[in-house]
Amino acid sequence: MNLVLSRDSQVRVMEATVANADKYLGQLCSLLAAYTRKTARLRDKADQLVKWLIGFANTESPELRATLRDFAEDLAKIQDYRQAQVERLEAKVVNPLKLYGAQIKQSRAEIKKFKRVRNHEIKQLEKLEKLRQKSPSDRQKISQAESSVQRASGDASRTTQQLQEAVDGFQRQKLRDLQKMFLDFVTVEMVFHAKAVEVYSGAVHTLQSYDVERDLEDFRAKMWAAYGHSDCRPLPGTAPSPSLLWSRASQAQALTRSEREEAVAGEADSAEDSPEEGRG
Amino acid sequence: MNLVLSRDSQVRVMEATVANADKYLGQLCSLLAAYTRKTARLRDKADQLVKWLIGFANTESPELRATLRDFAEDLAKIQDYRQAQVERLEAKVVNPLKLYGAQIKQSRAEIKKFKRVRNHEIKQLEKLEKLRQKSPSDRQKISQAESSVQRASGDASRTTQQLQEAVDGFQRQKLRDLQKMFLDFVTVEMVFHAKAVEVYSGAVHTLQSYDVERDLEDFRAKMWAAYGHSDCRPLPGTAPSPSLLWSRASQAQALTRSEREEAVAGEADSAEDSPEEGRG
Repeated sequence: MNLVLSRDSQVRVMEATVANADKYLGQLCSLLAAYTRKTARLRDKADQLVKWLIGFANTESPELRATLRDFAEDLAKIQDYRQAQVERLEAKVVNPLKLYGAQIKQSRAEIKKFKRVRNHEIKQLEKLEKLRQKSPSDRQKISQAESSVQRASGDASRTTQQLQEAVDGFQRQKLRDLQKMFLDFVTVEMVFHAKAVEVYSGAVHTLQSYDVERDLEDFRAKMWAAYGHSDCRPLPGTAPSPSLLWSRASQAQALTRSEREEAVAGEADSAEDSPEEGRG
Repeated sequence: MNLVLSRDSQVRVMEATVANADKYLGQLCSLLAAYTRKTARLRDKADQLVKWLIGFANTESPELRATLRDFAEDLAKIQDYRQAQVERLEAKVVNPLKLYGAQIKQSRAEIKKFKRVRNHEIKQLEKLEKLRQKSPSDRQKISQAESSVQRASGDASRTTQQLQEAVDGFQRQKLRDLQKMFLDFVTVEMVFHAKAVEVYSGAVHTLQSYDVERDLEDFRAKMWAAYGHSDCRPLPGTAPSPSLLWSRASQAQALTRSEREEAVAGEADSAEDSPEEGRG
């Protein structure tokens, strides 16, 4: 009976190994999926910022317009890298973890098979024990029961060995997969961050070389042009058109400050909520 | 009357400038605040990943345990840099934009003042016109009205000049602030990404030097130790304890696969939902 107990405690270690992997790898999968989703949300916000930059650039003087457009392009490039990061995290980290369920199921099946064989062995042992107590002189039946026990023990030994090999293989695969997966995670992240540094370095030069004074001259010229002509000259390249802004601003005169702030906040909200082209 | 119309159209340009700034800077403020919040959400998820790594490391063999702890430390370090990024974005980008409301209010007050003075000028002009039509011979009254118009025009001229200076100052400040704010944004982002690259490079070495085979030997020794002793040896450094896992696994035998999966998923959920220490 001692051998049966030894096998049992060994299987308990294997079972704990598989259960532990099931629990922790399941948690890891949902954590990394959530991390990837949050990265995608950050990309969405940055995409909105790119749109804002382009919209605002269209209402500004030439120097700032050009600067903001260049900056928007850099920021958009970083979001493309972020999109690649999201796709790679899904492909190299989240999806392999999702597939782990199948391997765990396989290991559980091996353990179940072992238990079935072991129960058969115990039954044969009990049968032999009973026979020895009830009819100790029936040599033939005892001998039959003894050979049944031997067969059952042989089966159990084989199954235990198979189980050992299966769990050993499972553990080796798990350790290798974890190493690979975390290395992939770090590599994907690192590539993105390195690209971001590279693109932002260019953006710094763009923003630093912006010349405020030239735009101020343009602005003053616009004011003086308006002074010279009694018609209200529209600002160039405008969305929304200044005449619309003007009419809104006129309306706003009749409103209290807080009412007007609400109206402006509403505009900002609707701009934020506008549907975006999905990235698929 | 032509001068009055010229001033009006000039003020319309100024008003459009201020309204445009109000609208777009309000949108920018809420966009960048949202971008900062999403960054904070990403940091939270990565913090959960750090906790998972430490928890899982405690259930694994010595080599993997040490590797995962080192990796968790690197990942935690990156989240500290991300926390600094969030704080800097708030301090250098979002908060300055929030303060812009006051400057816009000031410019609107200047425009309002100009309109009051201009209305007074128009009234004086109309009075003079009426007088010239009704009593063209009343030289004294006409002369009084003419000097009233002159005073009102003088006031209007002065106020227009003040307004021009105010809006010119507003525009200069706005352009400089935008340049500074976007430069700060890019710098804060760039510093974070550069730090992330640096720390992840170290993590790559940690993960690459992990030796699967040594842990497998440890695992096999554990299995054979269990085989040698009929008691179930606990795995070292355990949370949750393998005996608990074992009792759970035993219970699970009586459950269907999907019921058990639910139970395991429930554990994973409760682990994910566990309250985190806030970062303030």
